[in-house]
Amino acid sequence: MNLILLFPDDFTAPDRVFLGGRRFEHIRDILKAPCGKSLAVGKVNGLMGQGTIVAQKADGFELEVQFDLKPPEALPLTLILALPRPPMLKRLLFSAAMLGVKKIIILNFNRVEKSLWNSSSLGPQAIEEQLVLGLEQAKDTLMPEVSLKKRFKPFVQDELPALIKGSTALVAHPGGAPLSAPIGKPVALIIGPEGGILDYEIELLKAAGCRPLDLGPRILRTESVFPFIVGKLFAF
Amino acid sequence: MNLILLFPDDFTAPDRVFLGGRRFEHIRDILKAPCGKSLAVGKVNGLMGQGTIVAQKADGFELEVQFDLKPPEALPLTLILALPRPPMLKRLLFSAAMLGVKKIIILNFNRVEKSLWNSSSLGPQAIEEQLVLGLEQAKDTLMPEVSLKKRFKPFVQDELPALIKGSTALVAHPGGAPLSAPIGKPVALIIGPEGGILDYEIELLKAAGCRPLDLGPRILRTESVFPFIVGKLFAF
Repeated sequence: MNLILLFPDDFTAPDRVFLGGRRFEHIRDILKAPCGKSLAVGKVNGLMGQGTIVAQKADGFELEVQFDLKPPEALPLTLILALPRPPMLKRLLFSAAMLGVKKIIILNFNRVEKSLWNSSSLGPQAIEEQLVLGLEQAKDTLMPEVSLKKRFKPFVQDELPALIKGSTALVAHPGGAPLSAPIGKPVALIIGPEGGILDYEIELLKAAGCRPLDLGPRILRTESVFPFIVGKLFAF
Repeated sequence: MNLILLFPDDFTAPDRVFLGGRRFEHIRDILKAPCGKSLAVGKVNGLMGQGTIVAQKADGFELEVQFDLKPPEALPLTLILALPRPPMLKRLLFSAAMLGVKKIIILNFNRVEKSLWNSSSLGPQAIEEQLVLGLEQAKDTLMPEVSLKKRFKPFVQDELPALIKGSTALVAHPGGAPLSAPIGKPVALIIGPEGGILDYEIELLKAAGCRPLDLGPRILRTESVFPFIVGKLFAF
């Protein structure tokens, strides 16, 4: 936690917050921060700044806060992701939030196990938990927006073309072209399921305007593919 | 497991292997492969090829194997890594092997907890286990070499300059230059501890010939930093 993300409910006054629960334990047990200590804070979807611990209660800390710093710029990337198993989903949501993605679409593919759509890891609270952790790791405040698309074909045919208008749309898939230089404009990146994307699905994605992107001879795990491609796409 | 890595002890004849234990269970329970099925195999540090299941015993499978394919080229990158906590170490060894790194040096830094050097995750078998999993994920056979350096200063002053000769040596550290285009030659990449690299350590690394590499305003986790930088460094 390199920044403490603050929500409207945390505020007891415009310049005061009370932090209990996970954040209380983190400040007390990991940071071991005493009264008077200043910590990086940020208002969700707002400015970042400093919080000074003014009081420790039995169940939380009181901080005096001020805000003067813009969060880092969003990564101009829309991530469209085949629904993975819950542990991988958690890591990917964390990772996407950490890397600055602000729009995440979780999509069905033929090789996504249907039962995964009933997983509790897709609940709004479970999703938000990982996004908050990712923002706190990165020092960012802008909460990504996540949407679930359970039907592949209607999404790709009816929604995707408008979504990727003005962007470079890439789908990680063997046999595509490699990427030799960073891209300086918005990207929509599609990462399929671990078992691969069917020919039929690739054809529909191509018809919608997506270009296959080859990642070399090695088969990478989804959780590494994503930062690997982000590293390639953007020069910073 | 996209490839079954074979070791000398697995061979019962030049073209026969017997696979028990973890690989037996994987073939039986995950791949659910019947007799006659052909699977991708590779000899450790040798060629890749195909194995056909010829018999299933109570405790293993017998495969007839042939080899005709070179493993993918090594990534021209030496990874020098501050010793992380065991779960992160496991993921990083896996990830380095998967991405094609063949030389990994685990180094002490001031902000590495000293007790971590006694962790069982640094034992040769524990290290090999993660490397094997990474190679099996990527479809590669060339086993990386891992060495442990428990003393920072003697390593940086006495060994590092020779080690990085002919390479671009980079250390992930705020305030360095960003990297705007892939590098076409060998790289030595140093990733410090989660808590950061001390000024004193950075000065020693610079004196040894390393250049700080800035990764932008976000603070990334080590496990994502590594594929992120590899994506940046190499065009493939």
